Amino acid sequence: MERLMTWAEAAPDLIATAAGRVPADLVIRRGTWVNVHSRECLPDHDIAIRHGRIACVVPDASAQIGPDTEIIEAHGRYMIPGLCDGHMHIESGMLTPAEFARAVIPHGTTTMFTDPHEIANVLGLAGVRMMHDEAALQPINIFTQMPSCAPSAPGLETTGFEVTPEDVAEAMSWPGIIGLGEMMNFPGVANADPKMLAEIAATQAAGKTVGGHYASPDLGPNFAAYVAGGPADDHEGTTEADAITRVRQGMRAMLRFGSAWYDVEPQITAITEKGLDPRNFILCTDDCHSGTLVNDGHMNRVVRHAIECGCDPLVALQMATVNTATHFGLERELGSLTPGRRADVILTSDLKALPIEQVIARGKTVSINAKVVVDCPHYDWPDTARQTVHLGHHLSAKDFEIAAPEGANAVRANVIGVIENQAPTKALQVELPVQDGLVEGEGDTCQIALVERHRATGGVTNAFVSGFGYEGRMAMASTVAHDSHHMIVVGTDRDQMALAANQLAKIGGGMCLYKDDELLAQVELPIAGLMSDQPATEVAAKADALIEAMRACGCTLNNANMQHSLLALVVIPELRLSDLGLVDVRTFDFIPVFEPMT
Amino acid sequence: MERLMTWAEAAPDLIATAAGRVPADLVIRRGTWVNVHSRECLPDHDIAIRHGRIACVVPDASAQIGPDTEIIEAHGRYMIPGLCDGHMHIESGMLTPAEFARAVIPHGTTTMFTDPHEIANVLGLAGVRMMHDEAALQPINIFTQMPSCAPSAPGLETTGFEVTPEDVAEAMSWPGIIGLGEMMNFPGVANADPKMLAEIAATQAAGKTVGGHYASPDLGPNFAAYVAGGPADDHEGTTEADAITRVRQGMRAMLRFGSAWYDVEPQITAITEKGLDPRNFILCTDDCHSGTLVNDGHMNRVVRHAIECGCDPLVALQMATVNTATHFGLERELGSLTPGRRADVILTSDLKALPIEQVIARGKTVSINAKVVVDCPHYDWPDTARQTVHLGHHLSAKDFEIAAPEGANAVRANVIGVIENQAPTKALQVELPVQDGLVEGEGDTCQIALVERHRATGGVTNAFVSGFGYEGRMAMASTVAHDSHHMIVVGTDRDQMALAANQLAKIGGGMCLYKDDELLAQVELPIAGLMSDQPATEVAAKADALIEAMRACGCTLNNANMQHSLLALVVIPELRLSDLGLVDVRTFDFIPVFEPMT
Repeated sequence: MERLMTWAEAAPDLIATAAGRVPADLVIRRGTWVNVHSRECLPDHDIAIRHGRIACVVPDASAQIGPDTEIIEAHGRYMIPGLCDGHMHIESGMLTPAEFARAVIPHGTTTMFTDPHEIANVLGLAGVRMMHDEAALQPINIFTQMPSCAPSAPGLETTGFEVTPEDVAEAMSWPGIIGLGEMMNFPGVANADPKMLAEIAATQAAGKTVGGHYASPDLGPNFAAYVAGGPADDHEGTTEADAITRVRQGMRAMLRFGSAWYDVEPQITAITEKGLDPRNFILCTDDCHSGTLVNDGHMNRVVRHAIECGCDPLVALQMATVNTATHFGLERELGSLTPGRRADVILTSDLKALPIEQVIARGKTVSINAKVVVDCPHYDWPDTARQTVHLGHHLSAKDFEIAAPEGANAVRANVIGVIENQAPTKALQVELPVQDGLVEGEGDTCQIALVERHRATGGVTNAFVSGFGYEGRMAMASTVAHDSHHMIVVGTDRDQMALAANQLAKIGGGMCLYKDDELLAQVELPIAGLMSDQPATEVAAKADALIEAMRACGCTLNNANMQHSLLALVVIPELRLSDLGLVDVRTFDFIPVFEPMT
Repeated sequence: MERLMTWAEAAPDLIATAAGRVPADLVIRRGTWVNVHSRECLPDHDIAIRHGRIACVVPDASAQIGPDTEIIEAHGRYMIPGLCDGHMHIESGMLTPAEFARAVIPHGTTTMFTDPHEIANVLGLAGVRMMHDEAALQPINIFTQMPSCAPSAPGLETTGFEVTPEDVAEAMSWPGIIGLGEMMNFPGVANADPKMLAEIAATQAAGKTVGGHYASPDLGPNFAAYVAGGPADDHEGTTEADAITRVRQGMRAMLRFGSAWYDVEPQITAITEKGLDPRNFILCTDDCHSGTLVNDGHMNRVVRHAIECGCDPLVALQMATVNTATHFGLERELGSLTPGRRADVILTSDLKALPIEQVIARGKTVSINAKVVVDCPHYDWPDTARQTVHLGHHLSAKDFEIAAPEGANAVRANVIGVIENQAPTKALQVELPVQDGLVEGEGDTCQIALVERHRATGGVTNAFVSGFGYEGRMAMASTVAHDSHHMIVVGTDRDQMALAANQLAKIGGGMCLYKDDELLAQVELPIAGLMSDQPATEVAAKADALIEAMRACGCTLNNANMQHSLLALVVIPELRLSDLGLVDVRTFDFIPVFEPMT
């Protein structure tokens, strides 16, 4: 990748071209200029580009065209700024940054603010640096938010590595670091935890943006205390009141529309109905599967959805361009089609349907009609990143047994209740039978196990989960297990659970499903047990096959593999499982798998 | 001045107060929260403050009130953020930063972005540092823009000192420097002058804001070239098209309403009629006399005027608060009443008339009912700043003689035409009589002289000016002579001109007027010949007396002393006088005082 010149480095040539003294490298001719600063559509404009930056946007760039100037005819189409994803995790696509970039380029995403929080839990600061370094190779803009919370909830889980304030301070000097990743330890902030505040302080001292994550419906003193701690945005809102409250308190409300998050529609009414100034609203995906990227889109899908929810198309575009850039202190670098900015341009013939017909990033065409025409170079991932599943011993059914209290015929179990299309779970209580001294799943309640994989302790923590609808003898395992990324195994049968866990150890991580002793589906994720370096289409096909296998086992939930992977996420209520036990996220405390017998 | 804690330093206590665990220092109770993020008025809110920063804004801060908490009852009044002046020169008030602060505090100005460009011309970087250091002592926020153009137009004038790119780079590390002051050398930028671009590059490298100044109606290639060079705002627009063009091109349009600038009304229609997104519009004063500050107000006057021009009051307030803060990268530091920000609050009972009833800055009441209740400490100005008028020799009438071409009975002179209430002048041609070999003024045309005062060269450059309406034997002199700040003497009589010039040398600078050999009025400005360290009321009274004296000599122009001081400003068209000659600012070249005889 040719290094992009800074505005200052390019300025003499940008000036010469704008003045008409020296031809542009590229002119996009006769388009409708979608101006996200003034919020206007201005027909009949030309954009002249040099050194990957915009030199000028003028009614007629004839003076900027020389014999070697490339010309793209817009034919009256809209010229919109490349789309920005305000908060996201590349790992959620189960793809490396390069393959993620290749997958989203045809959808018009040219800038992503990524929090490599998942790899931080597995490989620590070194893993963050690997993601950062692969990001730097790409033809689009991938900024890194330094992960703040590994572990997400200290004391409630054990991760492969821990992020320290010193790590944060060090990362702030890396060229691609744009701020602090989502501060998920909201109780920590509200209680002025010195470690969390030190991370925030290091970020503020660097003049960078502190990402927020306040996953609670409580908008009272706890929320006030969290805001006072410094997080500058939040993407965890799910209601109109959440969005309005965040904006009023000086945060930016990030409205999320990922593969499994549907938080735009209930919140965008703050703009469309309540009439709030839209400048502090930002669109983001947070988490997208490869399948979504392959089949549905990325930020174009989010913008289109916002428009379908009644948002003015220009406002929706602002929420995915200039609002995002401003939030991260980059409004003079990208996010609008104006002089000096990176020449990230989309051509589209319809502002509502938003077909992405051509994508230019840093002045080079990177996609035409959904075909990627640019290289997305891979980083040379070291063995430390490729061998990360350490179980300690070969597992057997015995590792998954849950002994009943002495003499019990049945128990009242605290069960994790999965809710379709939502990150939160429900804390259920279910009466379960005892057979041969072991508690057994029943009906829609089956077993879940958290298998330690970072330090080869051999630890297996067992509990129960409900809502997947699994039937027959099956088990599914995944090393994508937010946020500690041990291994989550869910199954109706302990032999299948052992088979699935051992298989993932063998292939270096990923997801797999066993039914009746047979491997029905498998997604290999050799990098940190989280990502594939194969194209999104291949990963999506394998993930589809896995979902098909889940269906064959009776699970009909939308995006059920994502639900599976979130069952260890001890920062989102209500009930989760960590390597240290069953966690009630409403109280941030452990609760027993069984209620005491009465 | 107690040092303000950073947000990070204050965070543990802000959190504790927001959570209700520890009382606030101050609670403003029962006000209507004017929220400039959401653009709403929210009745019945309390603001809790600690360490000069906002801990929380909540419907009920009872939990934040302890026995030692100060309470201010808002009684339902509006609580608005302290007002920000987006671009201004303190020297224009002829007051030091301390006295300027004291003058504007009762008007609700709590933040100023000041370009000490005038003192830079007289004392260079050392003078800028003195202004910066006095600013740091004040109870309100005074940020310094490092002056970019001393001289304003190289080659067209000689200043006391020159600002270099190295000066700019050095200043960027000072704590109070917020960016680069207005880049007035717009032809230099459009021609990629390496010195100008180096100053811009140093500012961009520091992540700070480059101020613009494009004083030309040409919105074609010259403007495009200027924008491509990097200036991020401009306050020189005078028409709706100017404002719209700047915003579309990714700049912020600063709408100016100073003592003598009336640029809000013609430009604000971009918002009120054309419906542009208002976020990129900012209000500023640029230049205010002491008299304006004493009698009319400061930013409250500008906001009120914008509202009178049809602007929604909340939009007008955004243009003087959050828009400005965002522009300078300070949106997480000030400009809104939200957690973590500096507790700069105004209480007012009417959002349109905007009476400034109480002003709180950094959590302390600084003004109640227009009475300042805080100290504004003075810097100990050194002798180098107090002795700056060096004429070289005692002047006499002979120094002001303008010899006619040999044998001429009359000449066609290029005359500077003053336009009331506008910065630009007109290039006039006037036929003038010759007596005893000397060209004489006639009718409304009298003499103007630029007297060198920085290097004691003894140089006097003579020409003609029209429009003041002076009659009888008089002269007025001023060491406030933008931007080189030599001395401008305007008079109908050469003896009076010499008297006035010599008087200013004697008192170390200022303004004075002689009529019939009598000193009618005088304003002492001992600091750099630009500023008084006396209160604004005294300076305003003396300035009023000077204007009264100008009237007594026949001049009825509004703010004519300001017009006088601008006659050497060789960056604003059309005609100006420098120490090097008569300058045609349309072509940035010298023209003769007389046209060749035909």
